[in-house]
Amino acid sequence: MKIGFIGLGIMGGRMAHNLLTKGHDLIVYNRTPAKAAALMAEGAKWAETPADLAQKVDILFTMLSTPEVIQTLAANENGFLDALPKGALWVDCSTVNPGFARWMAAVAGARGVRFLDAPVAGTKGPAGSGDLIFLVGGNAEDLAQCRPLLDCMGKKIVYLGGAGNGAAMKMLFNLMLGNAMAAYSEALVLGEALGLSRQTVADVILDTPVAAPFLKMKQALIDQDEFEAHFPLRWMRKDLHLVAQTAYEKGVALPALNAVKEIYALAEKHGLGEKDFAAIYRYLAT
Amino acid sequence: MKIGFIGLGIMGGRMAHNLLTKGHDLIVYNRTPAKAAALMAEGAKWAETPADLAQKVDILFTMLSTPEVIQTLAANENGFLDALPKGALWVDCSTVNPGFARWMAAVAGARGVRFLDAPVAGTKGPAGSGDLIFLVGGNAEDLAQCRPLLDCMGKKIVYLGGAGNGAAMKMLFNLMLGNAMAAYSEALVLGEALGLSRQTVADVILDTPVAAPFLKMKQALIDQDEFEAHFPLRWMRKDLHLVAQTAYEKGVALPALNAVKEIYALAEKHGLGEKDFAAIYRYLAT
Amino acid sequence: MKIGFIGLGIMGGRMAHNLLTKGHDLIVYNRTPAKAAALMAEGAKWAETPADLAQKVDILFTMLSTPEVIQTLAANENGFLDALPKGALWVDCSTVNPGFARWMAAVAGARGVRFLDAPVAGTKGPAGSGDLIFLVGGNAEDLAQCRPLLDCMGKKIVYLGGAGNGAAMKMLFNLMLGNAMAAYSEALVLGEALGLSRQTVADVILDTPVAAPFLKMKQALIDQDEFEAHFPLRWMRKDLHLVAQTAYEKGVALPALNAVKEIYALAEKHGLGEKDFAAIYRYLAT
Amino acid sequence: MKIGFIGLGIMGGRMAHNLLTKGHDLIVYNRTPAKAAALMAEGAKWAETPADLAQKVDILFTMLSTPEVIQTLAANENGFLDALPKGALWVDCSTVNPGFARWMAAVAGARGVRFLDAPVAGTKGPAGSGDLIFLVGGNAEDLAQCRPLLDCMGKKIVYLGGAGNGAAMKMLFNLMLGNAMAAYSEALVLGEALGLSRQTVADVILDTPVAAPFLKMKQALIDQDEFEAHFPLRWMRKDLHLVAQTAYEKGVALPALNAVKEIYALAEKHGLGEKDFAAIYRYLAT
Repeated sequence: MKIGFIGLGIMGGRMAHNLLTKGHDLIVYNRTPAKAAALMAEGAKWAETPADLAQKVDILFTMLSTPEVIQTLAANENGFLDALPKGALWVDCSTVNPGFARWMAAVAGARGVRFLDAPVAGTKGPAGSGDLIFLVGGNAEDLAQCRPLLDCMGKKIVYLGGAGNGAAMKMLFNLMLGNAMAAYSEALVLGEALGLSRQTVADVILDTPVAAPFLKMKQALIDQDEFEAHFPLRWMRKDLHLVAQTAYEKGVALPALNAVKEIYALAEKHGLGEKDFAAIYRYLAT
Repeated sequence: MKIGFIGLGIMGGRMAHNLLTKGHDLIVYNRTPAKAAALMAEGAKWAETPADLAQKVDILFTMLSTPEVIQTLAANENGFLDALPKGALWVDCSTVNPGFARWMAAVAGARGVRFLDAPVAGTKGPAGSGDLIFLVGGNAEDLAQCRPLLDCMGKKIVYLGGAGNGAAMKMLFNLMLGNAMAAYSEALVLGEALGLSRQTVADVILDTPVAAPFLKMKQALIDQDEFEAHFPLRWMRKDLHLVAQTAYEKGVALPALNAVKEIYALAEKHGLGEKDFAAIYRYLAT
Repeated sequence: MKIGFIGLGIMGGRMAHNLLTKGHDLIVYNRTPAKAAALMAEGAKWAETPADLAQKVDILFTMLSTPEVIQTLAANENGFLDALPKGALWVDCSTVNPGFARWMAAVAGARGVRFLDAPVAGTKGPAGSGDLIFLVGGNAEDLAQCRPLLDCMGKKIVYLGGAGNGAAMKMLFNLMLGNAMAAYSEALVLGEALGLSRQTVADVILDTPVAAPFLKMKQALIDQDEFEAHFPLRWMRKDLHLVAQTAYEKGVALPALNAVKEIYALAEKHGLGEKDFAAIYRYLAT
Repeated sequence: MKIGFIGLGIMGGRMAHNLLTKGHDLIVYNRTPAKAAALMAEGAKWAETPADLAQKVDILFTMLSTPEVIQTLAANENGFLDALPKGALWVDCSTVNPGFARWMAAVAGARGVRFLDAPVAGTKGPAGSGDLIFLVGGNAEDLAQCRPLLDCMGKKIVYLGGAGNGAAMKMLFNLMLGNAMAAYSEALVLGEALGLSRQTVADVILDTPVAAPFLKMKQALIDQDEFEAHFPLRWMRKDLHLVAQTAYEKGVALPALNAVKEIYALAEKHGLGEKDFAAIYRYLAT
């Protein structure tokens, strides 16, 4: 079974590394070739174009930043979509809106290509250690086929039914993350203004059931004050935009989400887009 | 040491019960006398007015709904403030804004009465089982004196420094609670609109680090669809208003909090004020 | 010069009527044929499909509800795009996001078809009386060619430069309208809660420079309490969504707009989508 | 009839000047005495304390920044409240919440002092030219008595009924102003991001019924880019906070207002508090 991997950023690079080091051959492609260097040193083969890669593989993983980028690499000149062999399996691990995931499933299906949306919960750390959670939509048999590969990259696989359902659940994760990070940042800023030290607030709140456990990791970023990106703020903004767009399409009102989305938008405008999304704290604090 | 307890609602009634059953004599007062009946059957003595109660006690606990109610019972005719003996200790467990807590400390001090702000984390369940968390501001020696009594009602005491700091920390708890409940409700509503079952969303999300652990208890209320009030939605609205007011006073911007506050306001307008604040889900879902 | 008109709803029907009664022959198409009946009684010719219409015209006007509908009628089976003669002029009067307007310009250009985005300011009333304001993007010579036709439907033509600029300006109009309507509704509701009569609030505020003049017309709808749709609330929601999407694409933060957008979303969920967007008052008032 | 004036800032100074130059004797007080210099050069008499002033006047005007400042000057040591002669008339022109206006009416009444709340619509310009609009609550006969004085300062007097109703209507004005300024700023920022020039957007929008007429004056401030304060941004934030507080007290939900309030809060945090509130544009644009 020949495996291709397109998209070697913070997440994709680590995921591909785990496939390689657990014994799988890999053909890789990335728009910025330099990011493939480490993987090639580990034995990955390079493909000159997405199409080049696609025609050589049975399973294609994509881990890309936006629907627009996926569409470009899939369907533009030298795109992978028309090059994939009939019967191949395309597993998209990107975070996209469910509507786009269903579009991918449809265009793949129209070409005889099978499709799974398999976005992941977990950022840089779990991607590196192979502890991601895969949220999978599509055909259960297709999942069964690639499950051993997902097991190389993640610790848990949640099967959610038809195409787009993995993307749907991923929306909800990022809604929860983005909102909790904003709320906690507001709590810290208010607490400090009231004369409580940031350390005290963190110690008391993060140890109780009112705080999402992931915030402990983010507290470390806040304390270091560097906000090295595990999950860049501009991606969080993008994801919350996709959540808002999906809510619009489904006739759902999300007033809290939309308010939070705009705080990230302001923070990005103020130069924090490349920082971890925990930098929303810095935006609100200063 | 004679103990008085004013305010016998959902929280105060259970707290007073724990003091009684753990061996302490209690004089009680409540604006609605009927709510004192069960406690009197357990041996509590009734006082006709707050002043009547105050002149007989060394330690006074208050657990009331708003700053306005406290002010009325403290300072209006037959109020407890002028009736407390010099050197008495007033422990206010209500949720109020730090500014008001500092006002209480000041008016108490002006009369030779000691004061602690000691609001609690935890609602009906922990109040009943004596598992509250006390967030305490004021003088450490005053806390030492009443600590055995707090231990009858709670499992943990967090000392936070000067007067008002307990109230300050409590603000942050309710900010976290109100926001997380709203965000999770939005996630559920969006998930259902996308074809995921509510059970699936709950099972997947509540088991991961993106969700505050208290949401599991609220999920039970959502599933029962009764929303019996552990913590009424209109109190949550009140508390978030106090948070917003405190932020204003301190020059802090809280865009997410203010958006969430207005969702609770809309839900209250739509008749859900007496339900548990988890009923914000019902408001958003229908 | 043969003229086609696709989209005969509240706006398009009135605009086509003005072209007809001012002496122009018209071929029309509408997905719901019944809406064409009155125009056909006035002499308009019916086309069975968009393609059928397109191959017979030199100028095509479209006035449709969403980008999705335009895309369907343009590019699906029997769509008008491939049927338009080379050199024809397509004038789209719909309200769409600038990104989509530029897409229309591009796909038209690729087929040798000229394109203007010419959305209108003004709703049902000005559409009927020929008093619309056209906000036009595209080639100035193309505008010169169709100006006499626009003059039949509107009282003012604002030329804004390249393709998409008309759509861009229209975004701003609806941002202003949606926001002012929401703010005024909040003012009314608060005023009434404070004991001022709605009539008093309207009389005082609408006569001062703090109120956008269009609100006087909306006040009449509020007083009648029927909210017959001049501009349906669900279209306002759609347009504000397009504004938010455009802001996202351009890296702009619009916190007020996004908050307002969600009030319309809530109002639509509560059954007010087919009412005039002034019904946001009813949603907030009850 | 002896007239006192307390509060000689941007607004009060100009109003007092108009009283003086139209022939009325005036005793004045201001916390910062320097601000009284120009008026004293015009013949105003200085009082050392509020009480000092109060005991010498039949009518007292106050034009102060916040409820807290009024309370301090009224009721603290040397406050004016206990010094006003029985039967005197206190006319408060400050912008305060209706609850506080009713408190002023009550404490005045308890001392045999008559009270009108008479906040003004209009900022620096109309204050200078005597073109303010007075929004008056209280007793109609009391208004009749001071009407000639109000006519020296304003061009229009709107009588709104009982005490607090003037303050209530003023809330609504500032809600409208704050919101429209934010919405228009967002429109400008989005328009510029879309490639429309600021001048074009202003020319097109400000000339149509979608824009509140006061925005034309603010456009001048935006073009000058100095934002010299006609109405300081931090006062707008204060007023919107009072609106939000009043809405809370009345059980009204104002989601748009609360969102807008926090944009001003962010702008103030970013150093724009002393600028005109039109500087919210600068905050959103950069």
